[in-house]
Amino acid sequence: MSLLVTGSIGIDTVSTPLGRAENVLGGSAVYFSLAASIFARVRLVGVVGEDFDLAALEPLRRRDVDLRGVEVRKGSQTFRWHGSYSGAMNEARTVDVKLNVLAERGATIPPEFRDSRYVFLANTHPALQREFAQQLGRAELIVCDTMNLWIENEATELARTLRAVHGIVLNEGEARLLTGESNLISAGREIAQRGPRFVVIKKGEHGSLLFSEERVFALPAYPTTRLVDPTGCGDSFAGGMMGYLAATGRSDPAALRAAMARGSVVASFVLESFSVEALAATTARHVEQRLDELIELARVER
Amino acid sequence: MSLLVTGSIGIDTVSTPLGRAENVLGGSAVYFSLAASIFARVRLVGVVGEDFDLAALEPLRRRDVDLRGVEVRKGSQTFRWHGSYSGAMNEARTVDVKLNVLAERGATIPPEFRDSRYVFLANTHPALQREFAQQLGRAELIVCDTMNLWIENEATELARTLRAVHGIVLNEGEARLLTGESNLISAGREIAQRGPRFVVIKKGEHGSLLFSEERVFALPAYPTTRLVDPTGCGDSFAGGMMGYLAATGRSDPAALRAAMARGSVVASFVLESFSVEALAATTARHVEQRLDELIELARVER
Repeated sequence: MSLLVTGSIGIDTVSTPLGRAENVLGGSAVYFSLAASIFARVRLVGVVGEDFDLAALEPLRRRDVDLRGVEVRKGSQTFRWHGSYSGAMNEARTVDVKLNVLAERGATIPPEFRDSRYVFLANTHPALQREFAQQLGRAELIVCDTMNLWIENEATELARTLRAVHGIVLNEGEARLLTGESNLISAGREIAQRGPRFVVIKKGEHGSLLFSEERVFALPAYPTTRLVDPTGCGDSFAGGMMGYLAATGRSDPAALRAAMARGSVVASFVLESFSVEALAATTARHVEQRLDELIELARVER
Repeated sequence: MSLLVTGSIGIDTVSTPLGRAENVLGGSAVYFSLAASIFARVRLVGVVGEDFDLAALEPLRRRDVDLRGVEVRKGSQTFRWHGSYSGAMNEARTVDVKLNVLAERGATIPPEFRDSRYVFLANTHPALQREFAQQLGRAELIVCDTMNLWIENEATELARTLRAVHGIVLNEGEARLLTGESNLISAGREIAQRGPRFVVIKKGEHGSLLFSEERVFALPAYPTTRLVDPTGCGDSFAGGMMGYLAATGRSDPAALRAAMARGSVVASFVLESFSVEALAATTARHVEQRLDELIELARVER
């Protein structure tokens, strides 16, 4: 099934306890596309500025990601993010951010992409997410992400967007902020009552939770000790998940569990390098191997 | 198999966002015994002061816990702890603590308890834990707990104790502090190399990890929204786990996984009330029901 992602293409500078990478490829749609393209063909919709070197997208081209939805906007500058991690690297501290082109009008979905059946709306203004959703009326499954900025400042818009999507993927801090519930189980159930058919809460090293059809599913993270840079893990988790769903044409609760397991494994590769290096080198075969380990390590019998 | 626990019997005062309980029954050995006695007969070894009302131990008597190892020390006062929780209640803040009798010489293991085969040494000075372990030389499985105080101030003693036990159960903060590793997977593996055959890391709402025979096992917490007071959850987790192992006479990795699942379920009852009220009312039948749910919610298929 066709899978489309809208999101950012950016230039990142990242510091972690293990080193620093300057002006490297980043952005939610980039990580998502590379992750999802392990399983399915991906259509990427996003905007860069005239400063962007399109050669940087070579890893995506090698994965056959459809880049016809990438607009190079004259007179604009590319989104830049400078982040820093410490300790267990569970959360990034933003050192500096230049929204640049992301503060202007949104991307345009090419007419030839309007028939997409699986859609991921990476984090952006919830009104823009809803606009995208409306343009993709033939989609079977629309899933969005969000962030604290919109939860705090655009609550009404976000509430509307929640009613316009089938699923949402967000992290634990966002889930708590969105609901005011400190208990994550309560938070997940509460969000599921606000519109989406399912809610996925990402917990970094602690794995993820799925709330769907009034049931809870808990998945551990793939246990890794080769943590170099977690940037893009969340988007890659969503990419692995959506890529698997698009490849199988399913979105029932059992498929969602299996899809989250793929997402978790894909994310475990992302954090082994700066930028997209490790992710770009990850194949379906690599994923299969760790998937077996993940299923085994979560197995509990009576 | 006979199961013995050494640990505290205390009088707690606890404040949570849902209320406050004053001068209620608490202590690691109390929670452990009530939890373990769902599965196996328990021998409790601990000391109280002359101020302690032995009638408070009635819930343990009803569970047939063997209290011959409870010493009422003349001229001494019972251990008292005053704690407070906020937010997701993942960690207690100690408002006040009076070690009282716990600061004196340790408990005595009655001669008739020396043949115990399964042993849990709840948190106390690591030298005292080792003394207990030496007195229980016929034990098949000795598991200990510890805390930040000993990790920070008694590192050498604790290192020796780690070589004298078969397993250790500790929480994520303690595991990080003990190893200096922020990555929990690295921390767990590191501790397993310091002596014990297995290491269990408790992560509260995020479940628990087992490191055993160079493998990792991850178990989610039973998803609960009825959080009243988490005091005693960790000791009850250990109690459910050890009780199941003692009942089955096993301690292989598969049994440890199944035992942790029991521990996780038992802990989920503990936090539904102040003190031991909910735990004392929990039966094997209640545990079985939630166990099915827990196994189902962790199930992931290819």
